Amino acid sequence: MTATLQTETPTAARRTSRIPVAVLGATGSVGQRFVQLLEHHPWFRLHEVIASERSAGKAYGEAADWRLDTLMPRDAAALQVKPLGVHLDSRLVFSGLDSSIAGEAEELYAGHGAVVVSNSKNHRMDADVPLLLPEINADHLAAIEHQRQRRGGDGYIITNSNCSTMGLALAIAPIEKIWGIEQLHVTTMQAVSGAGYNGVASYAILDNVIPYISGEEEKIEIEPRKILGAWRDGRFELAPMRISAQTNRVPTIDGHMMTISLSTRSRNTLNLEQVREALDNFRGEPQELGLPSAPRKPIHYIDAPDRPQPRLDRDREHGMSVSVGRLRPCPLLDLRMVALVHNTIRGAAGAALLNAELLEAKGLL
Amino acid sequence: MTATLQTETPTAARRTSRIPVAVLGATGSVGQRFVQLLEHHPWFRLHEVIASERSAGKAYGEAADWRLDTLMPRDAAALQVKPLGVHLDSRLVFSGLDSSIAGEAEELYAGHGAVVVSNSKNHRMDADVPLLLPEINADHLAAIEHQRQRRGGDGYIITNSNCSTMGLALAIAPIEKIWGIEQLHVTTMQAVSGAGYNGVASYAILDNVIPYISGEEEKIEIEPRKILGAWRDGRFELAPMRISAQTNRVPTIDGHMMTISLSTRSRNTLNLEQVREALDNFRGEPQELGLPSAPRKPIHYIDAPDRPQPRLDRDREHGMSVSVGRLRPCPLLDLRMVALVHNTIRGAAGAALLNAELLEAKGLL
Amino acid sequence: MTATLQTETPTAARRTSRIPVAVLGATGSVGQRFVQLLEHHPWFRLHEVIASERSAGKAYGEAADWRLDTLMPRDAAALQVKPLGVHLDSRLVFSGLDSSIAGEAEELYAGHGAVVVSNSKNHRMDADVPLLLPEINADHLAAIEHQRQRRGGDGYIITNSNCSTMGLALAIAPIEKIWGIEQLHVTTMQAVSGAGYNGVASYAILDNVIPYISGEEEKIEIEPRKILGAWRDGRFELAPMRISAQTNRVPTIDGHMMTISLSTRSRNTLNLEQVREALDNFRGEPQELGLPSAPRKPIHYIDAPDRPQPRLDRDREHGMSVSVGRLRPCPLLDLRMVALVHNTIRGAAGAALLNAELLEAKGLL
Amino acid sequence: MTATLQTETPTAARRTSRIPVAVLGATGSVGQRFVQLLEHHPWFRLHEVIASERSAGKAYGEAADWRLDTLMPRDAAALQVKPLGVHLDSRLVFSGLDSSIAGEAEELYAGHGAVVVSNSKNHRMDADVPLLLPEINADHLAAIEHQRQRRGGDGYIITNSNCSTMGLALAIAPIEKIWGIEQLHVTTMQAVSGAGYNGVASYAILDNVIPYISGEEEKIEIEPRKILGAWRDGRFELAPMRISAQTNRVPTIDGHMMTISLSTRSRNTLNLEQVREALDNFRGEPQELGLPSAPRKPIHYIDAPDRPQPRLDRDREHGMSVSVGRLRPCPLLDLRMVALVHNTIRGAAGAALLNAELLEAKGLL
Repeated sequence: MTATLQTETPTAARRTSRIPVAVLGATGSVGQRFVQLLEHHPWFRLHEVIASERSAGKAYGEAADWRLDTLMPRDAAALQVKPLGVHLDSRLVFSGLDSSIAGEAEELYAGHGAVVVSNSKNHRMDADVPLLLPEINADHLAAIEHQRQRRGGDGYIITNSNCSTMGLALAIAPIEKIWGIEQLHVTTMQAVSGAGYNGVASYAILDNVIPYISGEEEKIEIEPRKILGAWRDGRFELAPMRISAQTNRVPTIDGHMMTISLSTRSRNTLNLEQVREALDNFRGEPQELGLPSAPRKPIHYIDAPDRPQPRLDRDREHGMSVSVGRLRPCPLLDLRMVALVHNTIRGAAGAALLNAELLEAKGLL
Repeated sequence: MTATLQTETPTAARRTSRIPVAVLGATGSVGQRFVQLLEHHPWFRLHEVIASERSAGKAYGEAADWRLDTLMPRDAAALQVKPLGVHLDSRLVFSGLDSSIAGEAEELYAGHGAVVVSNSKNHRMDADVPLLLPEINADHLAAIEHQRQRRGGDGYIITNSNCSTMGLALAIAPIEKIWGIEQLHVTTMQAVSGAGYNGVASYAILDNVIPYISGEEEKIEIEPRKILGAWRDGRFELAPMRISAQTNRVPTIDGHMMTISLSTRSRNTLNLEQVREALDNFRGEPQELGLPSAPRKPIHYIDAPDRPQPRLDRDREHGMSVSVGRLRPCPLLDLRMVALVHNTIRGAAGAALLNAELLEAKGLL
Repeated sequence: MTATLQTETPTAARRTSRIPVAVLGATGSVGQRFVQLLEHHPWFRLHEVIASERSAGKAYGEAADWRLDTLMPRDAAALQVKPLGVHLDSRLVFSGLDSSIAGEAEELYAGHGAVVVSNSKNHRMDADVPLLLPEINADHLAAIEHQRQRRGGDGYIITNSNCSTMGLALAIAPIEKIWGIEQLHVTTMQAVSGAGYNGVASYAILDNVIPYISGEEEKIEIEPRKILGAWRDGRFELAPMRISAQTNRVPTIDGHMMTISLSTRSRNTLNLEQVREALDNFRGEPQELGLPSAPRKPIHYIDAPDRPQPRLDRDREHGMSVSVGRLRPCPLLDLRMVALVHNTIRGAAGAALLNAELLEAKGLL
Repeated sequence: MTATLQTETPTAARRTSRIPVAVLGATGSVGQRFVQLLEHHPWFRLHEVIASERSAGKAYGEAADWRLDTLMPRDAAALQVKPLGVHLDSRLVFSGLDSSIAGEAEELYAGHGAVVVSNSKNHRMDADVPLLLPEINADHLAAIEHQRQRRGGDGYIITNSNCSTMGLALAIAPIEKIWGIEQLHVTTMQAVSGAGYNGVASYAILDNVIPYISGEEEKIEIEPRKILGAWRDGRFELAPMRISAQTNRVPTIDGHMMTISLSTRSRNTLNLEQVREALDNFRGEPQELGLPSAPRKPIHYIDAPDRPQPRLDRDREHGMSVSVGRLRPCPLLDLRMVALVHNTIRGAAGAALLNAELLEAKGLL
């Protein structure tokens, strides 16, 4: 792999001085995950935390109501929170902003030359913004050049997908690549952390299922088509598959489950054993480049008849792998299967981190 | 309504002396529901409780580890548990037996002249056993005559469906009747009570989803076709629809949820507002006959965007109604919707009771 | 009972024209319970709903995000929400206001002649405000006269206790009355509904216990002493017991559990069988007067070794009874036991309703 | 520390050839934890797995229904399960046997020269069996000599305490040592894993609290007194404190919480700040010896007002530390606090492992 070799030396060199980064929306649920995952990151160093006016000026340790099950990193606790809009020292900016303000704020920083790696939904479907999933569409980074020309500067935005989309897109990528997907039904059972710390009241979800998540079905029906589509002639072409998504909130902490039924464009050649192998053997550029957050295997196929399960499988490879199981025929379409993604790691902050690592490995920072 | 009038007098007369009934498997989870629902039943009176050798001879109050949130009926508590196989005084026998023994035991009692109203799976697909859902297929009772001829006696067996099937079959019955269903995808999220009191360990399901329930998908893919099919020329014809079911266990107490996507055979005429009305206005023979356990409306269509929900809607009409919501187009098939059934009432003991009431109203006891 | 006979005629007469009432804070969690419990109330009729400026002017059906498992009463849904502070037609006013505004608002309405029956904490410990628990201290109503003199009008305020206090005070009342309590340790395990609908995030409490509820321990350590104390010579004397409370939030929907260990002032005469009987046989004025919301038995003693349990016992007598079990010796004090109260019914809106019924029966409305 | 120096060389030497060990009851919940914790153990190597007749002869990978959230160790999966009673190659034997059979089986192996490190309750209170908690009572190992004389061989048994006892005994050890404890009230809120994988049905515990755990209160009231007591003149003297325990099961996966209220024998000198420091600074022999499973700090005092919490704090130091918080005065006794222990790690298999490490460090293997 030439690409790997080329990046090895500068990467190693940079480890001696980690790249300073900023986190927008650092006190929120995605922001806290960024802060957590950056603590021991070999390439990046948390340098700035940005949050709302209310938190600005306070130490991060005071401003953030820390909710994760590891201790807040000491260095982070000592940082002074900056308000949104101020000049940032860091060129690399992670955004965990709420979508009500992310659109404008991310555009602002990109306009001032920052590389904005966003988890927010606002720019995902923009015509020149990559909806990056490094195992699948690293070539979409070519769109960056179009952004630069549009803005007339070096800054740009890249995004990762919705949390459920991430699990779905990864789980079906090997099938799409080999057989081509035509139709797909997916029903999700999503954990409460997907709505942020205060997003789902316990009174609403204990002993209950809520069959509705605002805006979620629309995202799942379109985002995988951009991710699995092509960047051709200066624009994104959506993959031709059609998707029907039904989304539910269930009383789990972390880990979005989904049942999938799909048909391919080459029905007669489909063999489930081959599909199983295609899933389990799937690798992408993050694995070839050895990116720090890349899982060894992006997809773990589990043979047990009752897996994956959120509590038992969400943390595989530090939450960066998608787990798939129950591959079997479908009476209506070509196959059925179950997939699981850790929604706040691979489905959010971990995905953004991996995206940024790809940028660094490609010399785009 | 001639049918109603004909039954009114004997029914009223009988209320002064309720029909004695036996419950097989009375200490189990379905058996306890039978005992509970029979307490104040206007037509039936619990007369005998039958359970395993281990419980036989004890008072029911001692033998049963009562788990329901109402008090054990006093009269029931005083009954002495009889072992399986002994002669029964009651002609009407409810069966909540485990499927490992139900097949043979039910056949035995039917062979001795009993009317066995079973919740077990064993005889559901038998060629001359009605899989009764009174709002839909009361005419299937014609098959009883075939059983009588086969056995050479007055006894017979009728069954109700699997708990999830019950919710699905009721929710789609009006659509099947008017437009005819062609293809159907269903994903269930089922409560732990569906597996019996000790069926799902808390260590297995807290903060978790289990994407597998043994034998469940097979039942859901075939039973609705018998229920919605026809009894013609002395045999059951399955409805021609094809079903793909994916089943999951979630951490709820009672109430099976399901997402449904389906296509009909008359696509061009489908109008969602008409479907909504067909669901909400659906009535069947139990409503016409005014059966004691019949819900006023078998289906409640709920307009709120995030309903039905198990905790909020499972108890509508004492758990005997199915709730439906989120009716909307599907990008792949004709429509999507969400349905909910109380699995241990309408999906089990309550269904069997309603079945027996239909038998009584039809003069078949 | 002379008292009962005296009230019978006016009560019956009034049923033909129910007393109009207002509910302050009608869209909140306690307010919704008031609206629910008033729907079929024989004496009171919901006439006015009052909420924040944000809701004022809207129909209650729109303004309230209804969260209970029964349907919103139709009549209530049609009422127009009034803002806090406006003149009310109703003399009887139930208050489910948040404590941040309840103090002033309740005082205002009482000053204008209303009878304010409050569930809020603000005036509970006031020198002339009864902390009413009708089975225990109906004689505390004598303090009303002092309020009237203070304000120079007919209006007054009565309150019910904190939800956990309610369970504790009722459970120990028979013991206090007969033996006198000296020391008491209580540890609570409280349901999430105690914090209001959005009070506890699911992310905070799923698979978790939170050993802290703001202000709760202080209330439990003082309120029972006022409830069980005496109104003497124009002032309240606290019962001389000392209480240590430790409070916890657990992942249950409704029902506050508590373990209790206590010593009495007459140790040598204590006999657990007598205590059990004193609990189970306990009755008070609501039972004698036959108040509509009065449980037949305020305390249910359950003999089973593992009861009470929230899910199985909270709804006894429509949630108006306290359940007690596991009465046994304590290695350190005189006895131990477990108690359970439905926190949003007997511990909140139901308690206020019972209080108002006592006022009516006593001719104080 | 002479002891440390003495063990360093042999320890280092042994790392090149780890000590072979056997696990009794290897397929159960405690047994699986043993297998998990032994996978990467620097001193011990899993050599034999023993289970019931039903599992004997199968590969462990087949026989065990693995329930932990890490993968089953490959080496373990390949071991053939041996039946209870056969000769073992390993001198060091961990026992996670069910108490119905542990008593006899452990005695048998000790009689044949094995060092049995047991998690079962059977021998905990035996007159010459240490109830070992290495941070507190390493000197109790002197009792081993008495066992050897009694049995006339080299084998012996040591035990660790009940899971809740472990949390309690560790949390109060520094207070007992400095001030002496007189009276103690404890109420526990215990996780479902404490009952084994199938011990608590989900139908029993979802949205519920069960105020009873068979035999648990008796253990908690006596075991801490042996742990904190003295080995003097050839026998154990119980610590003179008196304990009242009330135990509850709550819907959490792992982590037993407890509220504690206690009085000391030297009331006038008690200062809460000193107590806090005594807790946080507490260290014992495992820390001095640097045993592999020893936490850096046996007790973590957490200052936040609402901690510890099971989900956030149970995994501190790989589940080997007890967390304590909310230290404050008690209106009745001297102080109150909240403690948390990971019941299946520090409270079970991890405790046994630490015990065995102490034996090795002391040259007793």
